[in-house]
Amino acid sequence: MLDMNNYPALSKVNVPADFRDFTIPELKQLCTDVRQYMVDVISVIGGHFGGGLGAVELTVAMHKVFNTPQDQIVWDTGHQAYPHKILTGRKDLLPTIRQLNGISGFLKRNESEYDAFGAGHASTSISAALGIAEANKYMGTNRKVIAVIGDGAMTGGMAYEAMNNAGMLGANLIVVLNDNNMSIASNVWQFSNYFTSIITNPEYNKFKGYVWDLTGKMDNFGDRLRKVVGRVEGGLKSIVTPGMLFEALGFRYFGPINGHNVHHLVKVFEAAKGLTGPILIHANTEKGKGYAPAEKHIQRLHASTPFDKVTGIAYKKEGAPASYTKIFGDALVEIVKQNPKVVGITAAMPDGTGLNILQEKCPDNYYDVGIAEEHGVTFSAGLATQGVIPVVAIYSTFLQRAIDQIVHDIALQKLHVVFVLDRAGLVGADGPTHHGTLDLTYLRMIPKMVIMAPKDENELRNMLYTATKLEGGPVAIRYPRGNALGVPLSEEFTQYEVGKAEVISDGNDVAILAVGSMVDYATKVIPRLEEFGISAKLVNMRFIKPLDTNLLDEIAVTHKRIITLEENTLVGGFGSAITEYFCDKFYKNDILRIGLPDGFVDHGTQAELHRILEIDADGILNKIKNFCQAEKHINEVLV
Amino acid sequence: MLDMNNYPALSKVNVPADFRDFTIPELKQLCTDVRQYMVDVISVIGGHFGGGLGAVELTVAMHKVFNTPQDQIVWDTGHQAYPHKILTGRKDLLPTIRQLNGISGFLKRNESEYDAFGAGHASTSISAALGIAEANKYMGTNRKVIAVIGDGAMTGGMAYEAMNNAGMLGANLIVVLNDNNMSIASNVWQFSNYFTSIITNPEYNKFKGYVWDLTGKMDNFGDRLRKVVGRVEGGLKSIVTPGMLFEALGFRYFGPINGHNVHHLVKVFEAAKGLTGPILIHANTEKGKGYAPAEKHIQRLHASTPFDKVTGIAYKKEGAPASYTKIFGDALVEIVKQNPKVVGITAAMPDGTGLNILQEKCPDNYYDVGIAEEHGVTFSAGLATQGVIPVVAIYSTFLQRAIDQIVHDIALQKLHVVFVLDRAGLVGADGPTHHGTLDLTYLRMIPKMVIMAPKDENELRNMLYTATKLEGGPVAIRYPRGNALGVPLSEEFTQYEVGKAEVISDGNDVAILAVGSMVDYATKVIPRLEEFGISAKLVNMRFIKPLDTNLLDEIAVTHKRIITLEENTLVGGFGSAITEYFCDKFYKNDILRIGLPDGFVDHGTQAELHRILEIDADGILNKIKNFCQAEKHINEVLV
Repeated sequence: MLDMNNYPALSKVNVPADFRDFTIPELKQLCTDVRQYMVDVISVIGGHFGGGLGAVELTVAMHKVFNTPQDQIVWDTGHQAYPHKILTGRKDLLPTIRQLNGISGFLKRNESEYDAFGAGHASTSISAALGIAEANKYMGTNRKVIAVIGDGAMTGGMAYEAMNNAGMLGANLIVVLNDNNMSIASNVWQFSNYFTSIITNPEYNKFKGYVWDLTGKMDNFGDRLRKVVGRVEGGLKSIVTPGMLFEALGFRYFGPINGHNVHHLVKVFEAAKGLTGPILIHANTEKGKGYAPAEKHIQRLHASTPFDKVTGIAYKKEGAPASYTKIFGDALVEIVKQNPKVVGITAAMPDGTGLNILQEKCPDNYYDVGIAEEHGVTFSAGLATQGVIPVVAIYSTFLQRAIDQIVHDIALQKLHVVFVLDRAGLVGADGPTHHGTLDLTYLRMIPKMVIMAPKDENELRNMLYTATKLEGGPVAIRYPRGNALGVPLSEEFTQYEVGKAEVISDGNDVAILAVGSMVDYATKVIPRLEEFGISAKLVNMRFIKPLDTNLLDEIAVTHKRIITLEENTLVGGFGSAITEYFCDKFYKNDILRIGLPDGFVDHGTQAELHRILEIDADGILNKIKNFCQAEKHINEVLV
Repeated sequence: MLDMNNYPALSKVNVPADFRDFTIPELKQLCTDVRQYMVDVISVIGGHFGGGLGAVELTVAMHKVFNTPQDQIVWDTGHQAYPHKILTGRKDLLPTIRQLNGISGFLKRNESEYDAFGAGHASTSISAALGIAEANKYMGTNRKVIAVIGDGAMTGGMAYEAMNNAGMLGANLIVVLNDNNMSIASNVWQFSNYFTSIITNPEYNKFKGYVWDLTGKMDNFGDRLRKVVGRVEGGLKSIVTPGMLFEALGFRYFGPINGHNVHHLVKVFEAAKGLTGPILIHANTEKGKGYAPAEKHIQRLHASTPFDKVTGIAYKKEGAPASYTKIFGDALVEIVKQNPKVVGITAAMPDGTGLNILQEKCPDNYYDVGIAEEHGVTFSAGLATQGVIPVVAIYSTFLQRAIDQIVHDIALQKLHVVFVLDRAGLVGADGPTHHGTLDLTYLRMIPKMVIMAPKDENELRNMLYTATKLEGGPVAIRYPRGNALGVPLSEEFTQYEVGKAEVISDGNDVAILAVGSMVDYATKVIPRLEEFGISAKLVNMRFIKPLDTNLLDEIAVTHKRIITLEENTLVGGFGSAITEYFCDKFYKNDILRIGLPDGFVDHGTQAELHRILEIDADGILNKIKNFCQAEKHINEVLV
């Protein structure tokens, strides 16, 4: 437990009402304390880091000026909201963040009345805040609503749709642009370039030359007029601002202001509070502000495992196998070197997807499209019409943003695009907004889609290779977050036959049909089943679509009891595909479907969640034992 | 067959190469001919109309200047592309448009090498064109690529994401903004207002007054300087243009130009052809241009059934029942009048969804968010956090754009939002991009989702009422395109019990579990089955999620043979839900799943498509007969 005496201002604060009367020096101390507290806690337990450090003054100033929770602050992608959590009744819980039964790493409505809207995926805040603002009309309330959005999230199309709509409605809404200039799409906000282009515009210079020329002839008035011309430029500068885009969309613009000057922020928010209509406040901030190692290594400290407080360097686990992410990144580089028509596409997640390796090794074959999954998918469709082979690496949960584009822009048009879904299954600490629990269902419903899941990293390599060879439609590969199994990698790639499963071991009592991450668990379960006299056949399906129907036809005859195993919702997923097939063939085997329940799964480590949901080795073992020992089924009493 | 002599220029043209040498007067004649030919054909057969008429000169000028199909034109939402089809080898096929085995109403890659990219849903063209442009790098090609996008589609977030990315890449890409000022988000493009606000800016006026004051003291120089100041405003006017937004995103801007002056358009395209980098050409056009009735009644002639060529008035079918669309619109108005906390939300489709009725009757409870499904859904989530009850009316196929938002912004947060999916099932003439064949699958995978489908219009009314009462999560209602059944409407609404099916008739041999539109077919099939000695129980499921498991448990015992009937893909849909349930309970009934195949369905009338896919009464009858007559199933040979 940390000694709260080290944080003199924060120790007096539980909720925002506790610091609404603070003086400016006290607010500054509070900022210092919040920052230090974050460093002290997160260095020990890990978590999102840089974003929150950059938002300390913004958070303090907003809660000081606005009457939260009556007034509502909507954060975009909650990982910048740690200071908000600290200041809204949860400072004591910060050490539990992202852990089983602890507080969430993101905003969560049922965690606090101060969390106005849940946020895990980017670019949603303005839409949600606009809804809250409009609701005043119907509910007889008069809440102020503030959306806080980063410049990265501002590259997402939803944010633009929402700004446009807010401008149309003239809604009473304050948008705070937390601009830490980390967005890859920096040109959108670098209006200084635009200003430069005006000042160097020939038309403008012709005009300026004309004035200069004129004033030269005017003796004592000349100097004064030259000053006037100087003010023309000054005037232009104040007119052509970074706010143009927002003003064009119907917002009143204030800024850019220093997002780390809490005094100034308080004044600006006070002024904005009294205004009506859509308002945009543009604050410049620094990610990692106030903690030297984070300021220097922004990417690394976006989110971190526990790290050394002085150096900022994360502690390393020794000897762990490489992650699936890295295996994929390396394999893609090998494939691109063999076939330069293959390109990699990420939506602002080069590190998370492993595409940073491609970026470094083959920068010409690499695209980062911004937080713009929809565009990224249709962009890849355009590439594919010309014979380029795009490998689109988007997490399972984020690809939910672009399902329509996969359907109409790729599958319907029979275009060869490879989708690589990292973080399929339960991701652990990031919780429900980041779990990839639906992809087998939403991909399987798409006609012509080929879906694979590797049992280990060597299969991942071969599947990636196979996918780049399968012309005529989309191909998807999904695999879990985290370290692979540590199996040896073949030097040569193998192209798999489409729709062909791999029989791993034979057995008579039950057949286990397993997908991807579940194959490893099944392998561990089989010898333990034998202890109970149960002999199991194990199949690594490899392909979820199309299914290996020849093998299924065989198994339908040889095995009365079948188990399906997947790390995906049981609604419409792999097990559902098997039951559809068996039903259509009028096969009467007993099928036990093991997978994720039809519900949202909270955060916790992957191992904890697997255990609780009974899809770890123990859980699977018990389910199969019970299944095999059940002698009576209702069909036996059917007439 | 039309007499092509009536179209002197068009009669000489099959493909663009045929008019690349035309003089300007000949090009003008060609425009006249194309327009007249469209009116003559579409008035007889129906089709999209106003958009194409507005794009005639753009189309002629682009194909004249660019070397299509080597150079590629990517149209956004293909219904503006009829002139393009006429001029690219398909004029003789125009009378077949949108009919079974005829040409598509949208762009289609396998229909013509001139159709660079398929387009049914809005806002995709810049993404696809950017992909094609970038592909030059890998394929050793040097195609020019032109995206043509309307101002409406420009409100979609994808378009913004793509512009931003194109600017970052500095890609060689020409975007033609076909601005017919029909977009509801007109303020985005009305920069004239923005200019006005600068001229009236106090800072600017202080400066201007200062100059005025100064020059008043300067005798003969004074007048000249006053002229200078006049030029400051002129200079500003040329600097602060509608192009600002595009230039901020990295585009070179040309315009606005008259989109009906083919001569000028040719000159501008010729100039643009020689430039590199991202270019935006802003053309002002009029929807329905050149056809008086269309110019006057734009909305009505966006798309039309056959109409009188002189008056533009569509021929009416007498005595047909009201459409589901109208029933929904009327019912929503009734509900809003009972509960003013209910609001309706459309994504730029007030007429298509029936929300135009709400707009007229209760404008305060109506929102049109633009072509912005993602924003619309999260906006409704924000409303719902405050206790407002949003009814989001988005076609089944367009809601695919916002699945992630339903999952994370609504279902995960247990927010009460009602989704109304018109056009669920096969829509007919609009074809594969508009069929709503996936919604039962993608909605069913979402935890906490309640899904209903009405068997007739009275049920639709009751379901809408029920949905507005079901707090605690999202509720969806899906129904088909077209006329309802003509059943009487109850004056009072009835609230249905969640997850409770309706048994319509009893029978011993088979149980038919039908969903929504299929209940009516099933009702017609039952007496015909009796002729073959087959007695069928018919269940109107009403709820696809949650299922009426009590009834299913009963039927599992009473009926060996069960049929599921749905107008949705068989992959993961309603039938799949039934097989999942029966499998998990180890029920061994024979289940025949009838629905849509795992593939894309082309255009044709709804009746034609149902017949071909054997989901009309005849098809269903035959399938059930065969099913009942099959005596042997593989389970009987299982050991």
